[in-house]
Amino acid sequence: MRIALDAMGGDNAPRATVLGALAAVKEDSSIEIVLVGDESAIRTHLPAELPANIEIVPTAEKIEADDEPVRAVRRKKNSSLVVAVNLASEKQVDAAISAGNTGALMAAGLLYAKRMEGIERPALAAYIPNRKGRVTLVLDVGANMDAKPLHLLQYAIMGSIYVENVLGIQRPTVGLLNVGTEDGKGNELTKAVFPLLAKTDLNFVGNVEARDSLEGVCDIIVCDGFVGNVLLKALEGAATSILSQLKQEFTSSLINKIGAALLKPSLVRFKKRVDYTEYGGAPLLGLGSPIIKAHGSSDEKAIKNAIFSAVRYVRQDVNRVIQEAVRANTLESE
Amino acid sequence: MRIALDAMGGDNAPRATVLGALAAVKEDSSIEIVLVGDESAIRTHLPAELPANIEIVPTAEKIEADDEPVRAVRRKKNSSLVVAVNLASEKQVDAAISAGNTGALMAAGLLYAKRMEGIERPALAAYIPNRKGRVTLVLDVGANMDAKPLHLLQYAIMGSIYVENVLGIQRPTVGLLNVGTEDGKGNELTKAVFPLLAKTDLNFVGNVEARDSLEGVCDIIVCDGFVGNVLLKALEGAATSILSQLKQEFTSSLINKIGAALLKPSLVRFKKRVDYTEYGGAPLLGLGSPIIKAHGSSDEKAIKNAIFSAVRYVRQDVNRVIQEAVRANTLESE
Repeated sequence: MRIALDAMGGDNAPRATVLGALAAVKEDSSIEIVLVGDESAIRTHLPAELPANIEIVPTAEKIEADDEPVRAVRRKKNSSLVVAVNLASEKQVDAAISAGNTGALMAAGLLYAKRMEGIERPALAAYIPNRKGRVTLVLDVGANMDAKPLHLLQYAIMGSIYVENVLGIQRPTVGLLNVGTEDGKGNELTKAVFPLLAKTDLNFVGNVEARDSLEGVCDIIVCDGFVGNVLLKALEGAATSILSQLKQEFTSSLINKIGAALLKPSLVRFKKRVDYTEYGGAPLLGLGSPIIKAHGSSDEKAIKNAIFSAVRYVRQDVNRVIQEAVRANTLESE
Repeated sequence: MRIALDAMGGDNAPRATVLGALAAVKEDSSIEIVLVGDESAIRTHLPAELPANIEIVPTAEKIEADDEPVRAVRRKKNSSLVVAVNLASEKQVDAAISAGNTGALMAAGLLYAKRMEGIERPALAAYIPNRKGRVTLVLDVGANMDAKPLHLLQYAIMGSIYVENVLGIQRPTVGLLNVGTEDGKGNELTKAVFPLLAKTDLNFVGNVEARDSLEGVCDIIVCDGFVGNVLLKALEGAATSILSQLKQEFTSSLINKIGAALLKPSLVRFKKRVDYTEYGGAPLLGLGSPIIKAHGSSDEKAIKNAIFSAVRYVRQDVNRVIQEAVRANTLESE
């Protein structure tokens, strides 16, 4: 199992990416990581002698977070992001991971790994841990900003297949993110998608609201990439803000400090449960090669978890299963 | 000060609406509440003798949450929601409040209270309490599902005027809700709105992300009604879910219970700060009469707070100030 990691992508690169890679190969010696990026910057964070399961593929360019995605991918062909994706699309590695520019990762994926046959728009998926102790898969969370009804229908199909085949949930439930649970709610897009979803043999449960995403009312939530991105960042922001405010309260007096000390094991356990970085990177579903997007703000731990997400993705052969199911589904609907 | 309250609107009506009205007139005897709805259902929750500041306007119909808004408003002219809005538009009351069908409230507002001159699409605004101890006004959070660039520009103008004139914040900052803070991010709508906002004399700070809404990075956030609704419900859902999970943790052992008991005053204070119902109803900005939308899930306290929101709205004469400023702004830009 060989995985290419864009060592220069993300707010904390290359420190977090290199240390995350080291942590991953230490934990699972069957993984080889190809660090793609500025060799001298990468080596700053590595021991003098390169560890056995770490390789470096040196690159000279870097795609910035505010680069226009398509132009950046076309012009910076020797960037760490593009080279990492290329290694995956040329099957020199089994998967590629980047915490860099999401739009550029999708653009590079479309240009080099290509779309899967029959998929109109690949989607970026993310896990939301829910109160039932499981996760809800949300897609699209930012790959495709202006979605059409057919795109959301395909997200629902890909998401269902992914969850059914990889997470092992039979007949997973699909919800359409909307402004109310009643039929007929929403904007032009959701009003057009609803009857399409109702016609499929998916386990469609109708409209769901943003607040339902944490309650585990369904296994998959579909929405356009702009809305999904807002949903994800709102949930993350609320969790971060609430926990940080609680911490302030809990250290504001001696009595509070004693109370917080008694609760510490619970608080640590709780924090881990709502920590989205625990769940690793999110796959770009619908591309020809496994490509994983890690958070822009990924730290070492988040990078390590993204690597293990990629490992599970490859071991379960998700892309083959999706490809076959999409093919079968397309034949059925014809 | 007379306020019409749709007694039948919301998940907990008419109990929550009637008890909320009673609580409001008890707290401020200068308020008169006109309860609009099914008289016998309303009287179930009232003392045998009608309190001095409570009136009933009996109606026979009710608009349901899943009614198609425009059709419902046109067909159910004797519904509690339509009659309450009519009382406001005919100046028989100073403001109207409903926790019912948001689309129907906007439709009734447009049909009877009419749009303010020069306003293309009225917007539903909401407060998000932020970490700086202030609030961020977000609009639109659900009045207008498919917004055009001009609509968002007007939301920014109305929001700025509202915050500057009513909340007393000089040169309030305006952010455009987007999927990243870099210029050039977003969907077709936000890419078109960005240069329009940059050209105004508003204090435009550029793109903001969903997670920034809790950090107080700006005083006003503009977005289309679908996205704003998802943002608001995601924040509410996260807060509810986290606090409920913490409560479970804190009662899971004797030591935890002791710890939680010591922290109780802090926890109560904190819960109050993140409790969105504390901030009362949200105004529909841009209509000819003050119309306030309370949460569909409003309890007695939320209804009472929505009433006090309406009272402040009327006392500050917000609509006149917005109307004058929009007029002035329109003249300037011509």
